[in-house]
Amino acid sequence: MENFVFDIKTRAYFGKDQIDNLGEILNQYGKRVLFVYGGGSIKNNGLYDRIIVLAKENNIQLVEFGGVEPNPTLKTARKGVELAKSEKVDCVLAVGGGSAMDCGKAIGIGAKYEGDVWDFFSYKLSPKESLPLVGIATIAASGTEMSHYSVITNEETNQKHGVGADCLRFNEVILDPVYTYSVNAYHTAAGVVDAMSHIMEGYFTHNDEYLQNRMSEAVLKTLIEYGPRVIETPNDYESRAQILWASSIAINRILNFGLKGLTHECHLMGHALSAKYDITHGVSLALISPKWYELCMKKGQTKRLAEFGKNVFGLSGDDNYVAAQAIQELSKFFFDRLKMPRNLRELNCGADKKDFKELAQSVSESFQSVNWYVPITAEDIDEIYNAVF
Amino acid sequence: MENFVFDIKTRAYFGKDQIDNLGEILNQYGKRVLFVYGGGSIKNNGLYDRIIVLAKENNIQLVEFGGVEPNPTLKTARKGVELAKSEKVDCVLAVGGGSAMDCGKAIGIGAKYEGDVWDFFSYKLSPKESLPLVGIATIAASGTEMSHYSVITNEETNQKHGVGADCLRFNEVILDPVYTYSVNAYHTAAGVVDAMSHIMEGYFTHNDEYLQNRMSEAVLKTLIEYGPRVIETPNDYESRAQILWASSIAINRILNFGLKGLTHECHLMGHALSAKYDITHGVSLALISPKWYELCMKKGQTKRLAEFGKNVFGLSGDDNYVAAQAIQELSKFFFDRLKMPRNLRELNCGADKKDFKELAQSVSESFQSVNWYVPITAEDIDEIYNAVF
Repeated sequence: MENFVFDIKTRAYFGKDQIDNLGEILNQYGKRVLFVYGGGSIKNNGLYDRIIVLAKENNIQLVEFGGVEPNPTLKTARKGVELAKSEKVDCVLAVGGGSAMDCGKAIGIGAKYEGDVWDFFSYKLSPKESLPLVGIATIAASGTEMSHYSVITNEETNQKHGVGADCLRFNEVILDPVYTYSVNAYHTAAGVVDAMSHIMEGYFTHNDEYLQNRMSEAVLKTLIEYGPRVIETPNDYESRAQILWASSIAINRILNFGLKGLTHECHLMGHALSAKYDITHGVSLALISPKWYELCMKKGQTKRLAEFGKNVFGLSGDDNYVAAQAIQELSKFFFDRLKMPRNLRELNCGADKKDFKELAQSVSESFQSVNWYVPITAEDIDEIYNAVF
Repeated sequence: MENFVFDIKTRAYFGKDQIDNLGEILNQYGKRVLFVYGGGSIKNNGLYDRIIVLAKENNIQLVEFGGVEPNPTLKTARKGVELAKSEKVDCVLAVGGGSAMDCGKAIGIGAKYEGDVWDFFSYKLSPKESLPLVGIATIAASGTEMSHYSVITNEETNQKHGVGADCLRFNEVILDPVYTYSVNAYHTAAGVVDAMSHIMEGYFTHNDEYLQNRMSEAVLKTLIEYGPRVIETPNDYESRAQILWASSIAINRILNFGLKGLTHECHLMGHALSAKYDITHGVSLALISPKWYELCMKKGQTKRLAEFGKNVFGLSGDDNYVAAQAIQELSKFFFDRLKMPRNLRELNCGADKKDFKELAQSVSESFQSVNWYVPITAEDIDEIYNAVF
């Protein structure tokens, strides 16, 4: 096991009506709060109104910054930073899915920095401090509510870059499964895929840590068990709760402490597609993952796939057979049970085979430092993109 | 899923040579440190000397409080509190196994309280604050290094009582598997049983939370896989690391968030035996647990035992068969593989059948508030004590 420091500073209020704690939470940090949110969903499910009331009751001034787009752009993050600075806010309250929350995090670090916030996302320097961050999650997906990551898209260069740092953990978050009821089947499914992908990218590595692998399988099984249930019964509290907590655990490092060299192949390949064609993040992952694991098998990485098949899908047989079956089961789960689109054409996203070569080249170049699970070339990535077209 | 607040404030430095951070850690809290430890083990494995050197290098004054006994007594805790107060220490550094660490925690809360520290352990009031607590664990067992519990024995009344509170979490702990190499086979095995018992007491409840159950099984499997390995190869870093991290996860609430009404039947019955006859905590749990699960089965609680048999021991068959087999497998694991003593007579601990009735009565009385997994009477407890004699 590798050395590590367990340090999850986030206090997470999980469950029904935890929103009632919002006043007390915000009051710890000050009276001027930048209220970051996305589209209108929180206005439809009552959350927006509840926040306004609670802020009033607690004499908290909200500076609103709504309209954060999916795959939040650098332009939006910069605008938010500017507003946070000019309004001299004491903390950030980010409410919504991964996009609003990631944008809130970017604003938090940007507001404490003289330069351009992209400096952090272009890996010029590591973020060291942030405004206090408070979050309210409204979808089980990215797990950003408990992760130390933020992902921003530079719309000028088509780069979707993630950065990780301790100061990117929320100080406090509210996770109420009820606020996820209104997420539609498509985005619910994409969220399940995203959470699974976070786990699989720790699991399919050169690490061989028993505890971490068994715990990862446990959370994967949970997502496979409850993913279809939330789609069938969107207002089932227990299922929504299982998925929401699983997606937080998936990326809060509990499953990864002690591991070396996590890899993010599917996320990197997916991010490039999402940035280029504005595809929902989890959908890009569903497309790419099975193809990626096929490539891993072709390149001789069979053992972990066989473990995955046996321990997650309950398959049995020799390793080669189980590994191949496991990829089949994963595909069936994504496409038959979660009903994810099967290829880029179905998405009508403007994807064009002519783009892939350049896209593949840029993915392989910009992430040369990544310790890939199997050696991977621009040609491999191009092949995967073509296979999911 | 029940509402909960995820809030694990402990920062855990896990791995080789993490002791190097001790100076920096202590310097955050002040220069006068109460250094709590147990018998001589830390003097034999070099840890004591290393702490003395690091304290000198960092101009930290250590007020030594050594000799904390196994199953630490109220008398010792009171002495430590007195010393902490008279020496006006800034924080507590507790080094050793569960006993030294639990005593350190008791001193931490006692030093911030005007009254008698037993007030907390007799449930007269809840602890609200503590001196800063720093710990260094030298055995994988109680998991107290990451738990919010402390257990103290009132040697006058033979009561071994545990209390849980947020302020009983260490601020920082160092977990270096190398410092657990010198733990002998007997105590290593007892530690594995203790950690398993913490998990099983969350698992064998009326909760039916999929994620929590699957994760619990994952950690149980780890302890079953690596418990015998550390006994066979005491200096195997990887095995020691797996056990140490598993025993922390077992009780830091990760497996229990969202559950309602954990029960501690085996711990309560075991504590009474340990307090009366000074039996190593994990040994008492190994004796009692299989008998307890037999009783659960007799009283109709078969389903979870069958899950346990299938998912942890890989058994198959109908529920009744698997449940019964699971108890057999658990016994075999404790007594054949971990080589725990099979009964009280083997222990030469002075146990006397004549004591059991009174002991059983007192256990059943003092814990009436516990939401037992199955209804349990003083007669049941008496029967269990007689069965393990």
